Amino acid sequence: MMAKPSVAAFRVSKFLDNNPEETDDLLAVEEPLEIRLAYGSRTNRKEKSISVTMRTPGQDFELALGFLFTEGIIYNKADVRIIRYCEKNTENLSKENIVLVELAESVEPELKKLERNFYTSSSCGICGKASIEAVRTIHPEMKGKSEKGFTIGPKEISSLPLKLREQQLVFGYTGGLHAAALFNSEGELLLLREDVGRHNALDKLIGATFEMNNLPLDQHILFLSGRSSFELIQKAVMAGIKFVASVGAPSSLALSLAKEFNITLLGFVRDKRFNIYNGFERINN
Amino acid sequence: MMAKPSVAAFRVSKFLDNNPEETDDLLAVEEPLEIRLAYGSRTNRKEKSISVTMRTPGQDFELALGFLFTEGIIYNKADVRIIRYCEKNTENLSKENIVLVELAESVEPELKKLERNFYTSSSCGICGKASIEAVRTIHPEMKGKSEKGFTIGPKEISSLPLKLREQQLVFGYTGGLHAAALFNSEGELLLLREDVGRHNALDKLIGATFEMNNLPLDQHILFLSGRSSFELIQKAVMAGIKFVASVGAPSSLALSLAKEFNITLLGFVRDKRFNIYNGFERINN
Repeated sequence: MMAKPSVAAFRVSKFLDNNPEETDDLLAVEEPLEIRLAYGSRTNRKEKSISVTMRTPGQDFELALGFLFTEGIIYNKADVRIIRYCEKNTENLSKENIVLVELAESVEPELKKLERNFYTSSSCGICGKASIEAVRTIHPEMKGKSEKGFTIGPKEISSLPLKLREQQLVFGYTGGLHAAALFNSEGELLLLREDVGRHNALDKLIGATFEMNNLPLDQHILFLSGRSSFELIQKAVMAGIKFVASVGAPSSLALSLAKEFNITLLGFVRDKRFNIYNGFERINN
Repeated sequence: MMAKPSVAAFRVSKFLDNNPEETDDLLAVEEPLEIRLAYGSRTNRKEKSISVTMRTPGQDFELALGFLFTEGIIYNKADVRIIRYCEKNTENLSKENIVLVELAESVEPELKKLERNFYTSSSCGICGKASIEAVRTIHPEMKGKSEKGFTIGPKEISSLPLKLREQQLVFGYTGGLHAAALFNSEGELLLLREDVGRHNALDKLIGATFEMNNLPLDQHILFLSGRSSFELIQKAVMAGIKFVASVGAPSSLALSLAKEFNITLLGFVRDKRFNIYNGFERINN
């Protein structure tokens, strides 16, 4: 089954200097995606709906895998028996909006993690410190792993926004999609994913590398078209990413998490300048 | 108890023309907020944690009220007995991150709505159509109500971005906050709320008007600093807003929902131009 289209044409009136001009324009498609998990032994198989997210169709399997990986439900490809669109109700026109991930029988998913209740289990109550602690609990093996000393120069960093824009064909048409992209230390774009939701764009990117068995992503720079939030850095931590840069600003908690996990964090990477919030040592000057 | 600060100072290296310059800079604070609901009769009182969102501290009560209103849990001020920060564990330094909303005894909250399972209860399965149907189910009385014929001119519309920027003092410092603002038909800014999360900014705005007994907002234009997604238009529908404009693009499903509920939807409102996606008749030309 093919994924649904990611852009669609709509009638629009463009208003400039009091002159409305009617034309066709492309908008980013937004549709709900439900992720269902099948798990348990052959004799006691269970199925559970674990997430509904508003996403741009395309790379739905990557999105599901990236979501499950960054939530700490699956760790490697062997954990997944098969992934497919839901085949029940074949007259249902929207079966492309339901992805079923069948786990291997050996996998016992810790579904409690998805409830986000871990926030409140910490002794300090619900706060940024507890949230950071929770990330450490989920993927403890990620911390400090594979320190191969990835570095990149300021010239290469400054080149990222233009390279991203050039590749964001869909963005060029609709202006409505967030992007997450992987670059190497030469500033070459390796992989790009887009979505109306910025978390989804990053889940798709990480899911694609999960499928390629390319995790952890410790020899790459993650470049984000928007701002860096706590949850985006959390996903980066899970994928072993040590270098995150974004066009917009980071939040306070994103920076705290980057410091905790020794991640280089840049913001406002645009117009030939950028700000370094953490991890100066990974910049070749 | 005071809310936590919404910005905080951090050390940053600003990199321009190969010249790193170290300085202090302000970042938007991001911290988790847990919303708890207390409900039931005096003899059978229950308490339930219903949401954890990453938000910028400030206007936490508005955020909680706006969230509960736009999710269809509360309808008017009389539904809320009291709202306060959690007072348990007084040694807990993060009690400002837990808001407890005590409902009046007469209110029986339909907590099922929060599970978002309504998406899949529709006959067409999970799809945009079902999502739109779900909005109609939650607040059926909103549809078509209070059609007083709000209109605004193109000159006033073009003036919105600059007025928003002038008022976004925090944005000016950090560049990291989404904004949701209410303007009247003369293009005067009436109310502005900001947050690291765009849903939170709109929840705060709607929560503030809920507290002032000013809903529905059918004589106003809602102006958003980012893009228009389905969930933002959903919140606008719940608040009775008939005119939504944004600096960025709408998604396909945001437009479908705007058409369904007869909401005027503008996008790319910047640089003295804008696009009209629906509801041309509310623009005075």
